[in-house]
Amino acid sequence: MIKIGIIGAGRIAHVHARSVLHHPNTELAAVMEPSLSSATAFTQAYGGRPTESIDDLLDEVDAVIVCSPTAYHPEHIVAAARRGRPVLCEKPVAADLGHVDALEAELAGLDATVMIGFNRRFDPSFARLHHLVEAGVIGDVEQVTIISRDPAPPPMDYIPTSGGIFKDMTIHDFDMARHFLGDIVSVVAIGQNLDPALEQTGDFDGAIVTLVNSEGRTATITNSRHCAAGYDQRLEVFGSNGTLNADNVRPTTVRVSTADSTDAQDPYLDFFLSRYEDAYRRELDEFLLALAEGRTPDPTIEDGRRALEIAEAADRSARTGTIISL
Amino acid sequence: MIKIGIIGAGRIAHVHARSVLHHPNTELAAVMEPSLSSATAFTQAYGGRPTESIDDLLDEVDAVIVCSPTAYHPEHIVAAARRGRPVLCEKPVAADLGHVDALEAELAGLDATVMIGFNRRFDPSFARLHHLVEAGVIGDVEQVTIISRDPAPPPMDYIPTSGGIFKDMTIHDFDMARHFLGDIVSVVAIGQNLDPALEQTGDFDGAIVTLVNSEGRTATITNSRHCAAGYDQRLEVFGSNGTLNADNVRPTTVRVSTADSTDAQDPYLDFFLSRYEDAYRRELDEFLLALAEGRTPDPTIEDGRRALEIAEAADRSARTGTIISL
Amino acid sequence: MIKIGIIGAGRIAHVHARSVLHHPNTELAAVMEPSLSSATAFTQAYGGRPTESIDDLLDEVDAVIVCSPTAYHPEHIVAAARRGRPVLCEKPVAADLGHVDALEAELAGLDATVMIGFNRRFDPSFARLHHLVEAGVIGDVEQVTIISRDPAPPPMDYIPTSGGIFKDMTIHDFDMARHFLGDIVSVVAIGQNLDPALEQTGDFDGAIVTLVNSEGRTATITNSRHCAAGYDQRLEVFGSNGTLNADNVRPTTVRVSTADSTDAQDPYLDFFLSRYEDAYRRELDEFLLALAEGRTPDPTIEDGRRALEIAEAADRSARTGTIISL
Amino acid sequence: MIKIGIIGAGRIAHVHARSVLHHPNTELAAVMEPSLSSATAFTQAYGGRPTESIDDLLDEVDAVIVCSPTAYHPEHIVAAARRGRPVLCEKPVAADLGHVDALEAELAGLDATVMIGFNRRFDPSFARLHHLVEAGVIGDVEQVTIISRDPAPPPMDYIPTSGGIFKDMTIHDFDMARHFLGDIVSVVAIGQNLDPALEQTGDFDGAIVTLVNSEGRTATITNSRHCAAGYDQRLEVFGSNGTLNADNVRPTTVRVSTADSTDAQDPYLDFFLSRYEDAYRRELDEFLLALAEGRTPDPTIEDGRRALEIAEAADRSARTGTIISL
Repeated sequence: MIKIGIIGAGRIAHVHARSVLHHPNTELAAVMEPSLSSATAFTQAYGGRPTESIDDLLDEVDAVIVCSPTAYHPEHIVAAARRGRPVLCEKPVAADLGHVDALEAELAGLDATVMIGFNRRFDPSFARLHHLVEAGVIGDVEQVTIISRDPAPPPMDYIPTSGGIFKDMTIHDFDMARHFLGDIVSVVAIGQNLDPALEQTGDFDGAIVTLVNSEGRTATITNSRHCAAGYDQRLEVFGSNGTLNADNVRPTTVRVSTADSTDAQDPYLDFFLSRYEDAYRRELDEFLLALAEGRTPDPTIEDGRRALEIAEAADRSARTGTIISL
Repeated sequence: MIKIGIIGAGRIAHVHARSVLHHPNTELAAVMEPSLSSATAFTQAYGGRPTESIDDLLDEVDAVIVCSPTAYHPEHIVAAARRGRPVLCEKPVAADLGHVDALEAELAGLDATVMIGFNRRFDPSFARLHHLVEAGVIGDVEQVTIISRDPAPPPMDYIPTSGGIFKDMTIHDFDMARHFLGDIVSVVAIGQNLDPALEQTGDFDGAIVTLVNSEGRTATITNSRHCAAGYDQRLEVFGSNGTLNADNVRPTTVRVSTADSTDAQDPYLDFFLSRYEDAYRRELDEFLLALAEGRTPDPTIEDGRRALEIAEAADRSARTGTIISL
Repeated sequence: MIKIGIIGAGRIAHVHARSVLHHPNTELAAVMEPSLSSATAFTQAYGGRPTESIDDLLDEVDAVIVCSPTAYHPEHIVAAARRGRPVLCEKPVAADLGHVDALEAELAGLDATVMIGFNRRFDPSFARLHHLVEAGVIGDVEQVTIISRDPAPPPMDYIPTSGGIFKDMTIHDFDMARHFLGDIVSVVAIGQNLDPALEQTGDFDGAIVTLVNSEGRTATITNSRHCAAGYDQRLEVFGSNGTLNADNVRPTTVRVSTADSTDAQDPYLDFFLSRYEDAYRRELDEFLLALAEGRTPDPTIEDGRRALEIAEAADRSARTGTIISL
Repeated sequence: MIKIGIIGAGRIAHVHARSVLHHPNTELAAVMEPSLSSATAFTQAYGGRPTESIDDLLDEVDAVIVCSPTAYHPEHIVAAARRGRPVLCEKPVAADLGHVDALEAELAGLDATVMIGFNRRFDPSFARLHHLVEAGVIGDVEQVTIISRDPAPPPMDYIPTSGGIFKDMTIHDFDMARHFLGDIVSVVAIGQNLDPALEQTGDFDGAIVTLVNSEGRTATITNSRHCAAGYDQRLEVFGSNGTLNADNVRPTTVRVSTADSTDAQDPYLDFFLSRYEDAYRRELDEFLLALAEGRTPDPTIEDGRRALEIAEAADRSARTGTIISL
């Protein structure tokens, strides 16, 4: 059994703990979290023991999943890297590009293994779609269209700490765009403030972003902090020989037909924990498989850095009304 | 221009008159109908002139469409055949098998051209599906599933004159079953009386019929005289290598998603005139094309006879609780 | 933790063992299986210890899941009942009606708790559909249409021991029909022998069955032992005010559009273990919940008996060419 | 019968002539076209007589449909207006904004009735979707997403005369965006040159355009000059309480399922003449209905001007890499 340590005991830590619990070859060995009572409750649910320092945690584990607040990601990655522990770190890799630079400088020469948790790459539908693109089913990719809308805004007091919509929410879409287009050379973003409840946060509650790669291929991202029909997560890739779509996921296949309407279906799975539960499990699978095979797992810190770079450019574009070249 | 005569001026005559009007190579030349005022109104809408006898009508036309009440079909077919006019006759070919026998005896030696109006064979979706079967896309046909439900019952006083649900409504489905399976050797039908409003008519308001051909391949037909969601017309053909489906037709492609349900679509086109408008036009095309090419148009009187034979067997099966061999 | 014993270590026992493993409140305590090496491998995978007699097993467990060959079901149910252990027994409850009679006689006075594993009632889509029917969304049920096709025939040597298609495969559909229609009064079945490879088994490889309840409401079941597109499991319930459909389940939501065709989707989940994995888990949930609440869990032995009665009638109908009254 | 004159005898003139022919209350009275042989062939197909001058044409008609090359639109509109003939003019209203200014100056005081042929507003699906928005089904419009891809590029020698992709193709989408958002205040466009065959034309072969109205509501338009799967015409409107989608239209409802894929459908209707045939008819209906009711028909010259203004801004944005304010 591979012994896993989790740093942090918040919402996303629970997701990873469940993946560890269900995985046939892993066990949760240790959890580090400032609040001892949270840590204890966490280990009672998933196993392992609470630790008070990162060194204690690293003593007991083979690999680490970093679920701490973003500001602590670099410190926790470096600590694990120094002890030779592979790391799966939640997105975004750091709070801003400056901190990623500093992190990369610290990791230089350490031979660290760090995977960044862009879970959507591992969603069964998006992964299948990517595989079909790689297999050449639609020829060359020309236009990627991503629709990504949350079912409801996060708690109001979370928003000021979120880093803004582009680093917090769109960052997943930026990684997906790069997954299909490679490096991006140009970014233009339109921010929206349509939800009066979110107006005073200073953050956008919707956005339209267009990315272009060096060959002129594009990705268009449509975001909203709310969506009446549920968690709206769709992907279309248009290529020279065809089009691929991945649709929303529903809890059942039931369709209702009456005199008013026909084939009405369930609302979408409405939270990222249910929508992407499989994706988180497959992300852990890939992390462990890469370790077992001695490969560098994807996505890397560099992928995390590029997505963050686009997020910062998008924010600048939306606030200045200009197209930003990278 | 090919001069067409229409016998009858009821609902289905209007459908055919519109096909004649829209066809680039046909014109309505004459209409025969007992009520002169109906005939006059009819010709004002579609052209041609009212005639008082079938001989007058046959004098002026190149071909005839028979839309008279079923009881008159044989008489009108024979009259046209004697004058060498090709006939497109509405279904059913006659009121019962005895009358079809008599009709065939009268036509013997006349070299008549008679096509029976089983319009569903010409529906674009069903025709495409049939073409794919013929092209071998799904291998050998094993199970045909037909769902055919009217949006609402006909007027109560029509039912006693209708010939019963099997000759009036299911007859279309019997022809479709034969279109995919060829001749039928065994029939079992379950009649339903679920609609209290129709109970006293003595006719069934729903039915489940299973047909078997000589190789053991089956067709299952589900009928109802009502359907809340509209005119429910579906066809599935399951074969050794795949399955083909033809779905309901809707007026638009709009889908509505809200917090209650997602991708709710329009009710189906809810009357046979709109649902099968294209089918009636393509039926006329095939009739004219066969004439132009000197071919016998399909479906023939013999097809009409076989469908009627199944309808009579189904009625007997439903009323006696037995499986009927043909 | 509730201690579960499993009798049998075959394919379906693995399914239940996984449900027990994933359930937060259960643990596998004991397994009984004639082959000690199978039993040992089984417990290594899922926990618990192998036992050599049913008495040993019953000593160690709070409840029993019976996965033995059908012929042993009554003996294992009675043994558990005598020791006051609740039983979840795989379908069919026994090899024939005579054995169910004998079982019920033995259980008389024992206050046994026995649930029969008709897992499809617990499939999320079928359960949701049933809930909508109960909630009155489509008014009164009039016509149930079940399409149930296996992806590929079972091993040839399994068929002679299977009890025949109606007891082995259609029995699930008979239970679903009863779930929506209640007791059945009339059965007519058409058996098919279209697959040359299965011809010499004496069993049918396809079937069309129509069931009628005392009010004339119907269920139509279409079965095949093979289906090119995967495991074809669909349910339609047509009611006085609307129609409900539950469709096939696919591994992803990806659609492929090229010059040849558009919106082509994945083949269906192609084995009952993947298709009904959730259903088996929810079946266990219901069993445990009923125990916790002191309720009799559904479906009962009586439900198992009625489904078996229909299966025997269907076989008689198909072999004699008659409609059977129950 | 309302007498219609058509100016021009090209492809789009044929579309309108068919609408006139099928309309119960109109007849084609006159056609003006420089090539007399084209004009004669045209009138032989649809009726009316060829005329050599616009004055001759205006003498004989009640209303005019302008299908001449764009450069002649203003001249033909003014001529009709001076004679008090209502005009339905094809899009775009003129070659550029300067010519629209001049046209509006000439029309001042003439009390002209001019409708611009933005046919998509009259497509049954898009019109139904717009009606549902107006009825408040999805609350306030927040994000409009238009995907509009031609099946194949126009002839190479047409492109230099087309006015460029934004005036030629996207102009329809600009009108649709305005139909849902009203006036636009900001435009950003990314042009693509991915098709080597079109590279030397100087025109783009794909584009992503984002429009913003004064309230910050957006429309995103994705265009391509080619699409393997057919003529890709989709519309999504996301609102505060729900989402509406209008999908592609297919010739049949047939779905094909085999071992390779399931529910594969037909390619889309692949040319604007078939896809929008109904839309052109309903456009004529609205034109005639507005005349009959004494209303100004929508869309107006001002709508044509605004769409053209956006097209010019989009071209400037794409060529300069800036966001353009209107």
